[in-house]
Amino acid sequence: MKKTDFAARAKELVSKMTLAEKISQLCYTAPAIERLGVPEYNWWNESLHGVARSGCATVFPQAISMAASFDTVLMNRVATAISDEQRAKYNQYKQFGSTKIYEGLTCWSPNINIFRDPRWGRGHETYGEDPYLTAEMAIAFVKGLQEGNDPKYRKCDATLKHYAVHSGPESKRHSFDAQVNEKDLYETYLYAFRRVIEKADPSAVMGAYNRTNGEACCASETLLRKILREEFGFQGYVVSDCGAICDIDKNHHITETRAESAALAVNNGCELNCGDAYPYLQAAVAAGLITEETITKAVEMLFTARFRLGMFDDDCVYDDIPFSVVECKEHRELNRKMASETMVLLKNNGILPLSDMQGKTIAVIGPNADATDVLLGNYNGIPSRYTTLLRGIQDAADTVGADVVYAKGCHIFENYDSTMGHGWGQNAVRDAIIAVRQADVVIMCMGLNPSMEGEEGDAYNGASSGDKTTLDLPDVQKELIKAVLAEDVPTVFVNVSGSAINLTEADENCDAVVQCFYPGAEGGNALADILFGKVSPSGRLPVTFYHSVDELPDFEDYSMENRTYRYFSGTPLYPFGYGLSYADITEQWDGDNCTLYNRSNFESGYTVLRYENGVLVGFTRAHLLPHQILTVCVPNDR
Amino acid sequence: MKKTDFAARAKELVSKMTLAEKISQLCYTAPAIERLGVPEYNWWNESLHGVARSGCATVFPQAISMAASFDTVLMNRVATAISDEQRAKYNQYKQFGSTKIYEGLTCWSPNINIFRDPRWGRGHETYGEDPYLTAEMAIAFVKGLQEGNDPKYRKCDATLKHYAVHSGPESKRHSFDAQVNEKDLYETYLYAFRRVIEKADPSAVMGAYNRTNGEACCASETLLRKILREEFGFQGYVVSDCGAICDIDKNHHITETRAESAALAVNNGCELNCGDAYPYLQAAVAAGLITEETITKAVEMLFTARFRLGMFDDDCVYDDIPFSVVECKEHRELNRKMASETMVLLKNNGILPLSDMQGKTIAVIGPNADATDVLLGNYNGIPSRYTTLLRGIQDAADTVGADVVYAKGCHIFENYDSTMGHGWGQNAVRDAIIAVRQADVVIMCMGLNPSMEGEEGDAYNGASSGDKTTLDLPDVQKELIKAVLAEDVPTVFVNVSGSAINLTEADENCDAVVQCFYPGAEGGNALADILFGKVSPSGRLPVTFYHSVDELPDFEDYSMENRTYRYFSGTPLYPFGYGLSYADITEQWDGDNCTLYNRSNFESGYTVLRYENGVLVGFTRAHLLPHQILTVCVPNDR
Repeated sequence: MKKTDFAARAKELVSKMTLAEKISQLCYTAPAIERLGVPEYNWWNESLHGVARSGCATVFPQAISMAASFDTVLMNRVATAISDEQRAKYNQYKQFGSTKIYEGLTCWSPNINIFRDPRWGRGHETYGEDPYLTAEMAIAFVKGLQEGNDPKYRKCDATLKHYAVHSGPESKRHSFDAQVNEKDLYETYLYAFRRVIEKADPSAVMGAYNRTNGEACCASETLLRKILREEFGFQGYVVSDCGAICDIDKNHHITETRAESAALAVNNGCELNCGDAYPYLQAAVAAGLITEETITKAVEMLFTARFRLGMFDDDCVYDDIPFSVVECKEHRELNRKMASETMVLLKNNGILPLSDMQGKTIAVIGPNADATDVLLGNYNGIPSRYTTLLRGIQDAADTVGADVVYAKGCHIFENYDSTMGHGWGQNAVRDAIIAVRQADVVIMCMGLNPSMEGEEGDAYNGASSGDKTTLDLPDVQKELIKAVLAEDVPTVFVNVSGSAINLTEADENCDAVVQCFYPGAEGGNALADILFGKVSPSGRLPVTFYHSVDELPDFEDYSMENRTYRYFSGTPLYPFGYGLSYADITEQWDGDNCTLYNRSNFESGYTVLRYENGVLVGFTRAHLLPHQILTVCVPNDR
Repeated sequence: MKKTDFAARAKELVSKMTLAEKISQLCYTAPAIERLGVPEYNWWNESLHGVARSGCATVFPQAISMAASFDTVLMNRVATAISDEQRAKYNQYKQFGSTKIYEGLTCWSPNINIFRDPRWGRGHETYGEDPYLTAEMAIAFVKGLQEGNDPKYRKCDATLKHYAVHSGPESKRHSFDAQVNEKDLYETYLYAFRRVIEKADPSAVMGAYNRTNGEACCASETLLRKILREEFGFQGYVVSDCGAICDIDKNHHITETRAESAALAVNNGCELNCGDAYPYLQAAVAAGLITEETITKAVEMLFTARFRLGMFDDDCVYDDIPFSVVECKEHRELNRKMASETMVLLKNNGILPLSDMQGKTIAVIGPNADATDVLLGNYNGIPSRYTTLLRGIQDAADTVGADVVYAKGCHIFENYDSTMGHGWGQNAVRDAIIAVRQADVVIMCMGLNPSMEGEEGDAYNGASSGDKTTLDLPDVQKELIKAVLAEDVPTVFVNVSGSAINLTEADENCDAVVQCFYPGAEGGNALADILFGKVSPSGRLPVTFYHSVDELPDFEDYSMENRTYRYFSGTPLYPFGYGLSYADITEQWDGDNCTLYNRSNFESGYTVLRYENGVLVGFTRAHLLPHQILTVCVPNDR
């Protein structure tokens, strides 16, 4: 048998397993079967923007940030770096004889749900609100994760999630029924799934927690069997979200028993269970709810994947990837470059880039200035080196001979900051004002952090389980902003968040506004590169920035009407695709070709967006030298 | 009236006050008396090892760390830097027309309690277990805080605390009665108070929470009136610990009413109240428990202090100290120098200093490697720049061309690390082992943090309110150490703690052991300076390192029998005063003179300790060049 005939080898191996063994292999904590030479393997791993939850790794900018780069070429390099680090770590872990959680090669990334509403806490895991942009970024990511230089083996498995029609509310995700019409389903919610499957052959798809149009996503005949397999031709395996199979009886009340839930899921094509429902398949077989043949086919699919990853062979070139690639210099440089492309300049009256700063003083103010959590987003690894926004500004200021004074000014959302000692709240705003009074220019680092927007159970804004209830900044930040602006010193406003925030006041009263997102371990260096003009900003918003949730439909309404730039009827504060440059670049279109004129002394990256009928249908990134004229081709690719 | 006749000016000002106004001024939150030109003033400020709890400041090593330097000259420079920053901040704060908590000039530092038992959570705020060392460090500190270049005004007020016989248990401090004999009282617990009062004229003393020999410390006729004022000739003011006056009736049950407590305290010489008891003085006067004259004298003392600080004059040179001194370059350099002198080398088989590291790999392991809280200790400010141990090692490794891999390895005390994602505990030790397997040398950064040893209400080891119950490292750390040592790679063990830890296993099985204490914002740079040989270690232990609490008397027993190097009958793991150097230095004594022979190529600081009858009676710090012979005079100074 040829080594590349993975399906045949899987079939042969599985043929030697008992029913109980087969069922055990459908669980994400697949135990060893020693008599068959099968080691213990935990399928759960994460790599959303770097190898996650498994010690040190290069922590690239959060997904939403990378979407703002509109740079699929760089995204592919980032994903290649991630898969190199994933393999390097796996090569070490497997020496222990087993592969535990977060140690394997099956990555449950990317999250290609559509960020339909800025309130969704997990929106920053996605590539934003546009299906085409989402698909393009995901294709680049999946290829980088899966494809390497080994002609036989897959480098890592990518998993598209959460299939399908999933974007909050977090508090109801285990019981929610998303109601969606045919047009929105295909044009918005499924577009990226279909396209990535066509273009990048992802190994896996993860089912969502919720129901969609009444069917539990992880056991949906419509979604899994008819659309995913039959219509989209998906050849890979499906994994349930964690605990989602139990939800089918416990919270969705579609089935009566756990055995029925498990059988329904596998029968409809969910081969792998994250959770503890599939052990009930034994009872399900006994009760005639599912055949052993169906189970056998599911196990064969999973072992085909494991064989394809080279787990049972000794000639996989990825086995030679050394541990030294983890957080290597090249990856850190790549990270800084990506991070600098994720920054979106939203306003600039000419204050940026900062110049002639020698002997000047910069006041850096705000709860996100020296915060490390905002560098990381969620589903993140731990960087062994990181540069906060403050540190990046300090280091850059050192090189130009400027001084930096820093004041936190307030807790990010509470009235009181326990980390600063009793009663510190009284002094916090005064400290900020004092710092501002020393300064020639102020950089305010405000916004949210991943504890304020995130996943059910992970984010700390318990009231809404990770979702936001407002687009406004917390009151303590508003008060700080007011106090700082009253000092009338030129001010650059840096908003750090993974989602749209109401930046009306900053837009009206600050000299410049930068949207920073969650910029990764090199975030401070990247921001400094932008602020001090080492790099011209080139990011564009992957989501619409509204003024208020009052402009939007109910959060639980999955109709796309009046949502995202494609359907929003109002005038946003900043539209999808918006982003300024230091360079003065104009576009001139002639059919598929766009000629760019850079009428400035600034060198800059630039993304040309092509819209048709108000919908993004193509984009191309260019890099323009000072006073350069460049023609790029941007066909309608949607 | 001459401006320097502060007492007379205070008397005149106070003479215009009503009784109610006078009482209000005995509270730490002294309100404004506008008709008399007296602004609002909050007496509470902290400066234990840097301006604390008031935004950014240079954060020097924790007090226990600086005691390990045995460097009174440098300590004085540190305290001068602190008072410069305190003044610079005050000059800004007062522009707001009031001075709130942590904004004034009256510093409730230093803590000169004797660290009689390693279990005391607040021990790291002190200068250790020896009365003489404590006094010498405190004298240098108090002078640096109080004395400047203005002939008329005091720079800041220092406050000796907690008077007296105070060192846990934290959980009982509001009701505890410390029983102490005459000899221990004077030779151990009061020695430093007496000596600092004689040598450095501290402005204030803070009373302790507990009772001593039955009397509440903040209202003790014996301690305050007879000993402090009459015997020691203390001329300054006394402030209560915060809430301590309420404890007199509520928890000590010495008085029946709050008015009685307040009267008892002021009558015995506690002029200033941190807490809310002294408003009851109005009732106390009405009930005849205290005279208005006594209250008047107390207020006069407090206003004498405020006049002496130049708060009511416009010719105080300290008013010109600019904000730019805060965290200035000179202070950062001073901080790094002090931090490097606080590191104590406890074992070295020759592995240190690390040399010929080009192309080599260093594994940095442990929960304290990249922790920021251990840099800060408690009663701390916030550094705008800081260098973790890991970062310091990384930066130093960069300069010599070595690679660094990092793995946290475990949570500092819990079995599970929520910051690292679900199930991370499974991978943590594996990550450490993997890192070690890449390495030529391992640096383990273990120990405690200030949440595990600290003050009642501040530290998180709730079971003992901040005190330790064991000298052992947490089990998760022991397991990590075992796993790392099993890999048999040369290992340097860095213990980070503010108190003695049982380091038996490290001493037996590691190639070198460094006691790091809580090293301040420059801690990582300072440690790297030591590890890579840029600076030779010169710190000495200011406390005995025992093997176990089993060797010690009951924690609540205040007899000094079998405690500290002066009375301990056993053989400690490392004795008080212990500390190695890279240099080979021997001592030869001739009367008061000690000739030092440096028989090595290493330049090194070195502290000569003079003991008589087993008790430290003098010390002098020297700095030896390679192969230098130096004679220093060390008289019996005790």
